[in-house]
Amino acid sequence: MCGTDAPSGANGAANGQNPANFRSNPYQPVGDFLSNVGSFKIIESTLRALDEFGVDYIELTSPAASEQSRRDCEAICKLGLKAKILTHVRCDMRDAKLAVETGVDGLDVVIGTSSFLREHSHGKDMAYIEKTAVEVIEYVKSKGLEVRFSSEDSFRSDLVDLLSLYRAVDKVGVHRVGIADTVGCASPRQVYDLVRTLRGVVSCDIETHFHDDTGCAIANAYCALEAGATHIDTSVLGIGERNGITPLGGLMARMIVTSPEYVKSKYKLHKLKELEDLVAEAVEINTPFNNPITGFCAFTHKAGIHAKAILNNPSTYEILNPADFGLTRYVHFASRLTGWNAVKTRVGQLGLEMTDDQVKECTAKIKALADVRPIAIDDADSIIRTFHLSLHEQNKLQTPALVEN
Amino acid sequence: MCGTDAPSGANGAANGQNPANFRSNPYQPVGDFLSNVGSFKIIESTLRALDEFGVDYIELTSPAASEQSRRDCEAICKLGLKAKILTHVRCDMRDAKLAVETGVDGLDVVIGTSSFLREHSHGKDMAYIEKTAVEVIEYVKSKGLEVRFSSEDSFRSDLVDLLSLYRAVDKVGVHRVGIADTVGCASPRQVYDLVRTLRGVVSCDIETHFHDDTGCAIANAYCALEAGATHIDTSVLGIGERNGITPLGGLMARMIVTSPEYVKSKYKLHKLKELEDLVAEAVEINTPFNNPITGFCAFTHKAGIHAKAILNNPSTYEILNPADFGLTRYVHFASRLTGWNAVKTRVGQLGLEMTDDQVKECTAKIKALADVRPIAIDDADSIIRTFHLSLHEQNKLQTPALVEN
Repeated sequence: MCGTDAPSGANGAANGQNPANFRSNPYQPVGDFLSNVGSFKIIESTLRALDEFGVDYIELTSPAASEQSRRDCEAICKLGLKAKILTHVRCDMRDAKLAVETGVDGLDVVIGTSSFLREHSHGKDMAYIEKTAVEVIEYVKSKGLEVRFSSEDSFRSDLVDLLSLYRAVDKVGVHRVGIADTVGCASPRQVYDLVRTLRGVVSCDIETHFHDDTGCAIANAYCALEAGATHIDTSVLGIGERNGITPLGGLMARMIVTSPEYVKSKYKLHKLKELEDLVAEAVEINTPFNNPITGFCAFTHKAGIHAKAILNNPSTYEILNPADFGLTRYVHFASRLTGWNAVKTRVGQLGLEMTDDQVKECTAKIKALADVRPIAIDDADSIIRTFHLSLHEQNKLQTPALVEN
Repeated sequence: MCGTDAPSGANGAANGQNPANFRSNPYQPVGDFLSNVGSFKIIESTLRALDEFGVDYIELTSPAASEQSRRDCEAICKLGLKAKILTHVRCDMRDAKLAVETGVDGLDVVIGTSSFLREHSHGKDMAYIEKTAVEVIEYVKSKGLEVRFSSEDSFRSDLVDLLSLYRAVDKVGVHRVGIADTVGCASPRQVYDLVRTLRGVVSCDIETHFHDDTGCAIANAYCALEAGATHIDTSVLGIGERNGITPLGGLMARMIVTSPEYVKSKYKLHKLKELEDLVAEAVEINTPFNNPITGFCAFTHKAGIHAKAILNNPSTYEILNPADFGLTRYVHFASRLTGWNAVKTRVGQLGLEMTDDQVKECTAKIKALADVRPIAIDDADSIIRTFHLSLHEQNKLQTPALVEN
């Protein structure tokens, strides 16, 4: 907000190109001719990070939204990314023409079909929607581009209306039809049923879009794939209208459990955290503590019975392997819920030797302190070390003298 | 971590009971005899807030976990809460006896039944598990308490083993059997199928517990209820091992859409945000930006086509009504994705009058500025006011002179 308002001369001064004006800005750093604090340039690489991660498509704001949106679209098409560039436009010939001219690989065309949206948003009837859809699709195809046709608010639309419309656009060769749970009302079995029905009506691909208002956006995407959908709309951290859509990372968590080979070979999972951090910083949010995979709790184990088994074999309590994402697990042993197996592992990590009975005795000491106050790893470690030392002192002295200390 | 290490005399000094020692602690406030910074007491009301919200049961840590856990259990049973107090204990007679003695209303008994846990955690076979389960259940029932028997890691357990075990405990009169997706691997249709099958095998209630590793914890709880489950395990903000379990608030979001009357009559939804804030603060986390209902984005609308319809009729893009939770919606109009309908509403909120054509012209000005830099509401408001003023000036003067200013 500041840079664009400042006269361009100020930047020149910071670069040392105009020493005569040097102190014209009292906030200028004094005498540091190398400093670029007043003339830096930003190279924003979110799109490249996404491309590198391996997403198939990158969908952009409609060029009809504003002149800058249109210019952004053009510029991004020229970046030479591996992913195909799409733009999400209203089912309207003017918007479609504007989009085609930006150089995108395809158009994601959308129109509301529910009675809610037909009444309160665009006010068009189904015959008009079908006629316009066919026109726009044929135009985009004539330009050699990919085209998807989607309804909005599909789960509150009339099923027969919807299927008739999808069949009509499938007949004119649309590449994908889209189902959108625009308000986040759909439940997993509803999604399965609708996609399964649609799969029998159209021969083109099926794209799906789920909002997360009722916390089902990942599950719904999964059920859509089970029913024959081919494409899932995601965003990094799920960022979107209201509380967002299916998050890219959360979908990875779900899919790697089902199709580990496909997911691991296709996507650069080690880049996920970096990608999420980049976006979170850009839009000034924190990654949720409970975010799948990358939330700071995702691979933390605390309860004693969990820690014991995890240490024996991680897959007892982990369906995801943190190493697949370049991350590590953390077994929390410094708490009153700890168990002696977790402490035994820590004893080993510290390079100490104890019998199981000794570890159990030491665990009781840790639990006793943790009952009194929260303890850090250092506290637990020092209890372990002190206990271990006392064992050796006892062995050496072989007398009860120490007890009296 | 500091307070418990200090000698007790220091606290006395802060209360002015021992002025002679007053400066023995150099960090003590100087001369303020009323100050209690060194001797305050905390009254923690999370449990009362939960009780007030209307939850049916409050489940506590096993009294076998530590001596303090046992004392907490006893103390909480004496609070006189409306909710029933349960404790989650291993399927073990010693743990069960310890739990019964604390005064709880019921025991949630658990044991791992998957081959993973049988091998790597407790090492017991199915015959031993069934025998112990029946013993513990009969003991708890003989004390007049409620008892649930749950497997751990149910979705990776042998189906026939599981059903045999549940039938056996149902026969001896267990109140509920529990299914637990301990590792968060289950998908919604798997959950539906397992619960549906179990519903045909036992006549008791069915409790379910879902971890959120793959983002399906809310959806899985919903599908379990559809299949005949009766009880859902939740925690505030979903806090639990790894990235947690079904969150109380997220479940409310899902259920109010399906059963608005039941949910609104039973739970004090206006208290949800307060309850979540209380817990978030206690455990030092932030409520996720995208948390269902209470995340700061949950009722924020930005895209022009969304804002237009929302302003006509909120249910076009909102399946949840923020007022049900004592919250309000926010239509973001100060961005380059804004539409003239959002701006028209803002013009009305500012008490100004414009024709639709004038609002459209003004919207173009807001979008133009928003293209250059991020704009705040104040910025957009001042564009609207300036534009409105210029209209009136033009009307008054009826000359082209203003154009030259």
